[in-house]
Amino acid sequence: MAVLIMLNQVDPEPLAQHLKTHSDCPEIRIYPDVGNPEDIECVIVWKHDEGVLNDYPNLKLIASYGAGVENILSDPALPEEVPITRFVDDTLSDQMAEFVLGAILNHRLHLTYYREQQAAGQWREREYLKGMNVTILGLGELGSTAARLLDKNGYSVSGWARSDKNIENVTSHKGSEQLHDAVADADYVVCLLPLTLETRGILNKELFSAMKKGAYLINVGRGDHQNEGDLMDALSNGQLSGALLDVFSTEPLPEDHPFWKHPKIHITPHISSPTNRANIAKQFMANYNRLQNGVSLHHQVDIKRSY
Amino acid sequence: MAVLIMLNQVDPEPLAQHLKTHSDCPEIRIYPDVGNPEDIECVIVWKHDEGVLNDYPNLKLIASYGAGVENILSDPALPEEVPITRFVDDTLSDQMAEFVLGAILNHRLHLTYYREQQAAGQWREREYLKGMNVTILGLGELGSTAARLLDKNGYSVSGWARSDKNIENVTSHKGSEQLHDAVADADYVVCLLPLTLETRGILNKELFSAMKKGAYLINVGRGDHQNEGDLMDALSNGQLSGALLDVFSTEPLPEDHPFWKHPKIHITPHISSPTNRANIAKQFMANYNRLQNGVSLHHQVDIKRSY
Repeated sequence: MAVLIMLNQVDPEPLAQHLKTHSDCPEIRIYPDVGNPEDIECVIVWKHDEGVLNDYPNLKLIASYGAGVENILSDPALPEEVPITRFVDDTLSDQMAEFVLGAILNHRLHLTYYREQQAAGQWREREYLKGMNVTILGLGELGSTAARLLDKNGYSVSGWARSDKNIENVTSHKGSEQLHDAVADADYVVCLLPLTLETRGILNKELFSAMKKGAYLINVGRGDHQNEGDLMDALSNGQLSGALLDVFSTEPLPEDHPFWKHPKIHITPHISSPTNRANIAKQFMANYNRLQNGVSLHHQVDIKRSY
Repeated sequence: MAVLIMLNQVDPEPLAQHLKTHSDCPEIRIYPDVGNPEDIECVIVWKHDEGVLNDYPNLKLIASYGAGVENILSDPALPEEVPITRFVDDTLSDQMAEFVLGAILNHRLHLTYYREQQAAGQWREREYLKGMNVTILGLGELGSTAARLLDKNGYSVSGWARSDKNIENVTSHKGSEQLHDAVADADYVVCLLPLTLETRGILNKELFSAMKKGAYLINVGRGDHQNEGDLMDALSNGQLSGALLDVFSTEPLPEDHPFWKHPKIHITPHISSPTNRANIAKQFMANYNRLQNGVSLHHQVDIKRSY
């Protein structure tokens, strides 16, 4: 039996190297050099082509290379009854939380503004921004870790999720009926939602209008969470004071995209949650062994809920 | 009796307004409209001219408008035996600590770098910087607050001061003989020292050479802590990877100063510790009343130690 690495737009070699450091790792095949498809028991995937996963009759595990699984679930020809697992990494949650804190401090303290001012040879003070109300959309592994870090740093944190969450000092809102309440008092709105049918385009005109004027948006979820036209409008009319965007519907962001030159948009190239391949390999091997032993898998995706 | 506000380069009116909100405030005079010099019992000063404090025969208190008192102590004609107080503000310490954390996160996450890259229309990832060893020079009110905040955020913190300090989880070094040891492992060196004869120019070639190659300097102390030529050299030869400077020997930084255009220097216009005038007024009034009652003053400067 063998594990197949099938990564689109990502170099598969580093992951293969990390897997090989595990003595109990099965034979590794790298797509498209599959060999006999009947050998493939597990596949580690990222942005696979529709239908290709049906080529492996003995497939027992589809392991996502990333935390998000929308690229897997959107395949209409996904083999049924093969469990799907997500990559969940504490390091990744911690790094994401630091990124959110860093983005907020950068805005409150005007650090990037001063660097631009420096380029123009200007010496001009701005007051620290005092607003410290943060609403986090999505209170899963990533969102709750960010919420706890912000709370520890003196921020007043609210959160919104599909269901009630119980995180100390975090005001929890749930369901679509409480979405607008959740963001009403926020100085910063942070998107850390999974991308599902219900959350696609959730960062739109209606949501921006429910925020107080001058709120700042940080999207570290997925590009398809944001309605680009609505976002441009909200920045133009001052409803939003600015936005830090780490994710985009098309990545890399196309050269002619209006976000590039927008003075109120701070672009980072999808780096809020860097991939830790050593941890992916480790987590895959743990599930591979659980599979051999017939034990329930870690971080298995609930297909009905899309994450 | 009266209090004289004598502020150079700072508008005295806002402070006067804050003082007037205290019902027990004595008569306020604003320099140079002193009236009868014999009326002046207290003076609140910032960057006063040498010798002028000798004009007030009944002076009982010199209150510094800022946390630093080097401008007062450098006056060779300072009236003897008049107590000097510093302005110490918890809010200020908290803001300074946030500034230090924000500066470190900005560097680790490359947030400003990405903004510059955006201006050039480039999409290029950089790995988060993993180094989290921070050495804080100066463990007074400001330094110890910053140390505690960094510790809470998972940094490994060392500190250096004139004498041993006992701050939980902070490795303490003391005295000139331990200065080089204090910075040897630091990824970030933060200057939060008072400016004294011993600390002037302390950020120099010898200190930079004692750091590991590629360390990052954050100076939020005073401009005269840094030797500008040595700093430029250390940035050029890679001994330092960069510097965030909030303070300069001459402020505003002169137009033709080479720091402005330096790609490895991030300039902020002395904003790490914004002045809180309401708190200055409150703290002055507390000491004014202690003076009337013959009680020891808060935050009195030890002239021998210069702070």
